[in-house]
Amino acid sequence: MAMTVPRVDEAAAAAAVSACVRALGAENVLTSVEDLRSYRDPYAYRGSDENTGSAVVTPRSVEDVQEVVRIANEFRVPLWTFGQGRNYAYGGPAPRVRGSILVSMREMKRVLEVDDELAYAVVEPGVSFSALYDHLRAGSYRLWPSSPDIGWGSIVGNTLDSGRGYTPYGDHPLTQCGLEVVLANGELFRTGMGGMTGSRTFHLFRESYGPNHSGLFFQSNFGIVTKMGVWLMRAPEVYASGWAWWPDDEATAAVVDAMRELMFEGIVRNNPLVGYGFPTEEGRDPTRGGWMVRFGLYGREALVEAHWKLVHDALAGVPGIQLERRTYRTDDERARSTVHDDKVQGGVPGLELIETFHRRHGEDAGHLDLSVLCPLSGADVVESIRVRRELSDRHGVPYAAGIVLLPRSALHICPIIFDTSDERATRAAYEAYGQMVVELAAAGYPVYRTNLQHMDLVAEQFDWGDHAQRRLNERLKDLLDPNGILSPGKQGIWPAHMRQRP
Amino acid sequence: MAMTVPRVDEAAAAAAVSACVRALGAENVLTSVEDLRSYRDPYAYRGSDENTGSAVVTPRSVEDVQEVVRIANEFRVPLWTFGQGRNYAYGGPAPRVRGSILVSMREMKRVLEVDDELAYAVVEPGVSFSALYDHLRAGSYRLWPSSPDIGWGSIVGNTLDSGRGYTPYGDHPLTQCGLEVVLANGELFRTGMGGMTGSRTFHLFRESYGPNHSGLFFQSNFGIVTKMGVWLMRAPEVYASGWAWWPDDEATAAVVDAMRELMFEGIVRNNPLVGYGFPTEEGRDPTRGGWMVRFGLYGREALVEAHWKLVHDALAGVPGIQLERRTYRTDDERARSTVHDDKVQGGVPGLELIETFHRRHGEDAGHLDLSVLCPLSGADVVESIRVRRELSDRHGVPYAAGIVLLPRSALHICPIIFDTSDERATRAAYEAYGQMVVELAAAGYPVYRTNLQHMDLVAEQFDWGDHAQRRLNERLKDLLDPNGILSPGKQGIWPAHMRQRP
Repeated sequence: MAMTVPRVDEAAAAAAVSACVRALGAENVLTSVEDLRSYRDPYAYRGSDENTGSAVVTPRSVEDVQEVVRIANEFRVPLWTFGQGRNYAYGGPAPRVRGSILVSMREMKRVLEVDDELAYAVVEPGVSFSALYDHLRAGSYRLWPSSPDIGWGSIVGNTLDSGRGYTPYGDHPLTQCGLEVVLANGELFRTGMGGMTGSRTFHLFRESYGPNHSGLFFQSNFGIVTKMGVWLMRAPEVYASGWAWWPDDEATAAVVDAMRELMFEGIVRNNPLVGYGFPTEEGRDPTRGGWMVRFGLYGREALVEAHWKLVHDALAGVPGIQLERRTYRTDDERARSTVHDDKVQGGVPGLELIETFHRRHGEDAGHLDLSVLCPLSGADVVESIRVRRELSDRHGVPYAAGIVLLPRSALHICPIIFDTSDERATRAAYEAYGQMVVELAAAGYPVYRTNLQHMDLVAEQFDWGDHAQRRLNERLKDLLDPNGILSPGKQGIWPAHMRQRP
Repeated sequence: MAMTVPRVDEAAAAAAVSACVRALGAENVLTSVEDLRSYRDPYAYRGSDENTGSAVVTPRSVEDVQEVVRIANEFRVPLWTFGQGRNYAYGGPAPRVRGSILVSMREMKRVLEVDDELAYAVVEPGVSFSALYDHLRAGSYRLWPSSPDIGWGSIVGNTLDSGRGYTPYGDHPLTQCGLEVVLANGELFRTGMGGMTGSRTFHLFRESYGPNHSGLFFQSNFGIVTKMGVWLMRAPEVYASGWAWWPDDEATAAVVDAMRELMFEGIVRNNPLVGYGFPTEEGRDPTRGGWMVRFGLYGREALVEAHWKLVHDALAGVPGIQLERRTYRTDDERARSTVHDDKVQGGVPGLELIETFHRRHGEDAGHLDLSVLCPLSGADVVESIRVRRELSDRHGVPYAAGIVLLPRSALHICPIIFDTSDERATRAAYEAYGQMVVELAAAGYPVYRTNLQHMDLVAEQFDWGDHAQRRLNERLKDLLDPNGILSPGKQGIWPAHMRQRP
């Protein structure tokens, strides 16, 4: 589907920006060309002005957000909201529609509540994983955050994008409990038990009396989330970072099957990461196999010891496998200064991975992550490796993969790395990505999240029932945001006046 | 809010029923007075004709459901759908609006798929917990279902009502993965990865590309679910049913706090049930305290042994506590013929609880369950006991409770038992319930699920943001079901033409 991205009326945008300056103060509205360029997609071609906003506004309160929404409705100018704008490889802070007003939530960065006993926090969208970690450490809470590989992103933003981390609380959509949302009509909404004044279980119980609305605000443009409850992990007595390496694609089947059963048993409680040519393995012993899996074991020392033995027994029969572990006590300072992989499985966010990436590939390097789902069986994962190797070869992209083992599926993520200062190389990377999306869909592998350029293409693959999901999303969009002011085009959901069909 | 329940146009209903007979065959449409009476609310006053349908239609396929929906739209006659209609105390199969056409899903009872390796099943709404259990046993699958206290209910129905069971997979809304739904316009819809033709992860990954729609179909009247994936538990090597008894309300605080930490640690993996005057305790040793907790430990024999020691250590200091356990191997036939509590924690559905109830209280006995949420801290649970004892005393209802310990909240359920053949007693029970709903809401305790008579009253308590949830639900209802044919009034959500405001 060739899509012409709509443009924003420049006069309307200028009037809306002026209104934002009046409402929020000039200090909270960026408009210089230089500023705007720094909010483009970090992994788009450097020389392009596509996906540039006409201003960046920075609300500092829920009321500010409501005011910005009111202005957008008045002038019919689209907004594009981000938490930190750090979901690199998925668009960063950049809008789909050039000239949108970017709404940066970076200054709404309060940790509103931490409950040590009940193990949860309530955060605004500007709180990063690293900031929450620092807050918990400063307050001597017995709590761990979960973090994705890079800790600078917004907890709210990552969660709403269905992101993952690597502690036992790594299923971020699942650790969310209780959203506060500004709807497109400016009204404030609370999900679940937050719907009752005086309720004390807003952030403690996931369901609603009546329909559960939380899912509506994931990967969507139906509202702007201003507050979220996040469940945290009680710091364990001991944490062991377990590792295994093996040489052959085929042996991956036995590893996946063993890990699945250990996850079912509650022995491996985090989401293990199976990797091939993975960037974090810098300094890897070359005698080790090309494949690796890392996982965490958590709890009382004696139990972690017993669990390690069970993991060892389960993996020992895999041809050519080598096993290793490193054990940390929760009060051990080493746990905060160890290698990236051990930190991220131990609830310590960091920036090492992006630093490693640029050290290895250069300061102008960008990447796209093509992330598809397959069943969590050894045979299926090995088949997906075969398919993706073949596709990578055909498109001239070196095969590398991080395969996150989720409760019943595996998320097979392959990066495409390119030089963002090279227009042709960048365009080739995006083209290869798009072709692979279609080829993978034809083979039964859906993409769960994507970058700005491919949002329509991926939505197009969700074709069941004459694109029943897109049609329902469009009905919901027309109902909830009739002026189409909230993040038009996000995940392929366009307001009525911007819709195009081939 | 005094609400006059709307009536159905009798001529329109008769025409719609005739159309159903033509479409589905007379054998799939019940209309006799006697039949209709058997589908009323089992715990309403026996002599009342309120909440009686004008017919019971029994679709046998998705196409049948679509045809019934088409007829309902044509004649503007409301439907009321149930899986088995066994959610006794919450209305059973009965409609809110007298004269609705009841849609019984009991004959859509296929287990469409069981995957032993990936540990899930796909079921139609007529599959009961007991039926799935029998199916799994007949196929020698290494899988356990989770079941609520009584096994005759629909898995789909219970799950969509946010029901709970007692194995580690007892959070039924969370074990759901992948819904197929007939929308009010007759179109078929699939959630999540089911939105892509050929996807193999429809029932394996919980989120969507774009918004997650599953929550819209929980406790709602936005669609009729025709298929659901349900994640199952790998049968453990050993299962221990653990018990503790203690005398005093106050000591409950220490028990709750200890259980919460054990749950956080992954040692207690199911939802423990704290009980007082609980019906399953028939034959209880009178030297034991009035309070009890039951919980399960699951896994390798040596680990279950180690976990039991940790539980014992955690609870041993509670004043007056007595502990006990019974251990079963998964292939042990005893596990299938033991006491109710041990069975239900061990994935074996049964009917003992309702048999016990009628043996103790008589064949005409009914009950309402007043179920509210409080934080999962010992102090909060004890305070909720104080509040509820005081309310029970004031309303002349003996205090009894089942308190389900969920990950961060406790679901405090108190039954009100009455004689359904006694109109005054029945009315008094419903009145007491309603008054307590309001009093509990004022004290910060929300109800998560309720019976037909109190659906509007409970919705009324969700008052935050000028009843923001109800207002959004009404907008969604108008969008998704403009003729108001699907279960009008469910959870207080009425179509536009039936809405009344005080």
